[in-house]
Amino acid sequence: MSYEIRVELLGLGDELLLGLRENSHLVHIGDKLAERGLEIDYAQVVKDDPEEIKRFFSESWSRSGLVITTGGLGPTADDITRETVSEILGLPLVFNDEILAHVEKRFERSNKTMPETSRKQCYVPEGAEILLNQFGTAPGLFVQKDDKLLVMLPGPPRELQPMLQNQVIPKLEELGILHDSESYVGFRTAGVGESSLEERLDEITEPIDGLRVAFCANQGLVDVRLSSDDHERLPLERLKEIGHECRQALGHDFVSFGHPSLARVVFRTVRSLEKTLAVAESCTGGLLSNSFTDIPGISKVFAGSVISYQNDTKIQLLDVPDVIIQQHGAVSAETAVAMATGAAERFSADYTLSVTGFAGPDGGSRAIPVGTIYIGYCSPVGVWSQKVVFHGDRQSIKRRATTAALDWMRRKLFKYKAEELVASGVDAD
Amino acid sequence: MSYEIRVELLGLGDELLLGLRENSHLVHIGDKLAERGLEIDYAQVVKDDPEEIKRFFSESWSRSGLVITTGGLGPTADDITRETVSEILGLPLVFNDEILAHVEKRFERSNKTMPETSRKQCYVPEGAEILLNQFGTAPGLFVQKDDKLLVMLPGPPRELQPMLQNQVIPKLEELGILHDSESYVGFRTAGVGESSLEERLDEITEPIDGLRVAFCANQGLVDVRLSSDDHERLPLERLKEIGHECRQALGHDFVSFGHPSLARVVFRTVRSLEKTLAVAESCTGGLLSNSFTDIPGISKVFAGSVISYQNDTKIQLLDVPDVIIQQHGAVSAETAVAMATGAAERFSADYTLSVTGFAGPDGGSRAIPVGTIYIGYCSPVGVWSQKVVFHGDRQSIKRRATTAALDWMRRKLFKYKAEELVASGVDAD
Repeated sequence: MSYEIRVELLGLGDELLLGLRENSHLVHIGDKLAERGLEIDYAQVVKDDPEEIKRFFSESWSRSGLVITTGGLGPTADDITRETVSEILGLPLVFNDEILAHVEKRFERSNKTMPETSRKQCYVPEGAEILLNQFGTAPGLFVQKDDKLLVMLPGPPRELQPMLQNQVIPKLEELGILHDSESYVGFRTAGVGESSLEERLDEITEPIDGLRVAFCANQGLVDVRLSSDDHERLPLERLKEIGHECRQALGHDFVSFGHPSLARVVFRTVRSLEKTLAVAESCTGGLLSNSFTDIPGISKVFAGSVISYQNDTKIQLLDVPDVIIQQHGAVSAETAVAMATGAAERFSADYTLSVTGFAGPDGGSRAIPVGTIYIGYCSPVGVWSQKVVFHGDRQSIKRRATTAALDWMRRKLFKYKAEELVASGVDAD
Repeated sequence: MSYEIRVELLGLGDELLLGLRENSHLVHIGDKLAERGLEIDYAQVVKDDPEEIKRFFSESWSRSGLVITTGGLGPTADDITRETVSEILGLPLVFNDEILAHVEKRFERSNKTMPETSRKQCYVPEGAEILLNQFGTAPGLFVQKDDKLLVMLPGPPRELQPMLQNQVIPKLEELGILHDSESYVGFRTAGVGESSLEERLDEITEPIDGLRVAFCANQGLVDVRLSSDDHERLPLERLKEIGHECRQALGHDFVSFGHPSLARVVFRTVRSLEKTLAVAESCTGGLLSNSFTDIPGISKVFAGSVISYQNDTKIQLLDVPDVIIQQHGAVSAETAVAMATGAAERFSADYTLSVTGFAGPDGGSRAIPVGTIYIGYCSPVGVWSQKVVFHGDRQSIKRRATTAALDWMRRKLFKYKAEELVASGVDAD
């Protein structure tokens, strides 16, 4: 694959350079295009200064076949992209009534009068196609000139993302610049570091000419992307086969094709078993529950959660016996197990996951330092606990503990799925 | 302020362009430098290709007084920054024993032998200062040449961030490139849109020559940054005064100087009252609790939380009367209030915040559509409920509802602080 077209991204806005706002466009647009076989070659962020925009846009335009700009299309004084770009392209700005009607309608809907400054947004480079903005006033623009393409998108992600998906990608597909289907195979792994994963997969991937393997490690997970330098020799079907070989080789360290969250993988399995799930968490403080409740449809299996920051809560809301906390401490395998079984009973849930530990920076002792986490898991066939230790700051320990708990449950579910199906009276498949 | 030095950032790595990994360096480095009066003028992301690195690095080096690179310093084959850059600077690579000792020690500590490929990391451009990496093997580099500065930092944020803070910033300070104290005044507002905030502040800020005002809106909050074009005429002290005038003008819409989370502002107030706090949440599913538990030291005031995804849970763990849910529904002002009072009792907490609503995409009805949220709040002086409606996807509704609940509690706390101090027998100050 790899179309012979150079793609560059140009982000606009002082706020990105001053560290006021994260630039999330590169990762989003990069992923959406790569999914369809088009890779971004270069990206830049330029400040709201006409001379800078002129310089870097014209260089980018002369180098590339496709330039995508983000931001700078609003009505305020520092939004000068439209003017600068039309000057460089040699296309005069013309007033567009369709945009005016759209902007006026949006102001009407919120019972406001359109300010005069908003008329600025109605000017477009001559010949540009308008991408109407469903979630804001600034339209996107699509310009074809000198066998090159310019796509201009508004800055706010909730305006940009649907415009990219619903208007830009179909247009690029029509023009034959994007594949009409996915063009790489991605999968997610857990519990293996990036370099040892690379080693384990080398045997499969190295002998294959033209195969590209990219890794991205994040919070205990590593995502792998298999793509091809030559779509004829290594078509998507072949990439899928290679993906399946990797899956075989990795066993339970293979999480899923695509990159679903671990919570989603657990959710799918529990749903397929027609069972329910509850959570009891202490040091992760809602993060574990939140990773479940981000999933649409989770309410079918998720009963709820108790966040027990104090011993009293563990005793009163989760029925952890006082004596267990006295004897073993709140951060112990015994308490983790009691939290899991208590939650199972209180929520009448088939599966429960519990976490107790010290996320720091305070708490902990010499014997049980900050970063010590006990995970508890209760299923129809038994109860388990596991200890893990992490280093890092509070938020990072919370994230790592959440990932560890979810991954552990995923492995347990996978391993005992058949047994549990039998235990719960459902025919195993 | 604004030193007369052009600053450019150059990020390296295919994974950033393929959408495999978020580039979080720009926002982090941008903020850290701006805090001390140095603004990034331009940023770019370049792929791991020697020709591309050569081209874009040399252009950047010729334009700028300070270039900061991120990534590409590792031991693998695609880490070629060191080689390419030293070629352009005309500085030969020399082997550095200090780095070797450091890398070997790190491998020893984890009982591994250093692989031969890691020797690559021990070569540095002649004359470069080494920035030892506390959290990884790849050292950072600090090069002064032709009255210009080059800072090369490793890619992983947990390696880059401490190196920037502890080694790079002190060096830039010593060289007089950074102010030795903070050089802007930032504050956070809530409940006002960006454009009407700008209007309200114009009266104060517009007459002041040389004052720069930057806005950044995010999830219902707007951050404002006041900085100065001329440090002599508008010193930090004057910026602080202007900040205080803005605070007066904004009343309760002013959240705080700096940019603490709303949860932190609420936490500080509750802690100053020596009271405790609990949460009962349904549709926000742990996000509200999690925003509290991200705060170090929260365990002093936070008792815990119940996440009640089902009516049974609301009834059994929060003592919401069955009849209230029957009569008014689970998404109603009455249920929100009952959840808040139930949690207050169960957790023996002085303050409780509750949220119930439909985050979608399913659920809801014609009368109570997806996005409808009821917030409940219970304090020593009373119980309240408020309805809010948001549009967007599930995660965005969860975030907006969490922000709304926290901001509402913040306003209530602020308004009733004196009364509550009296009610609870503490002398009001």
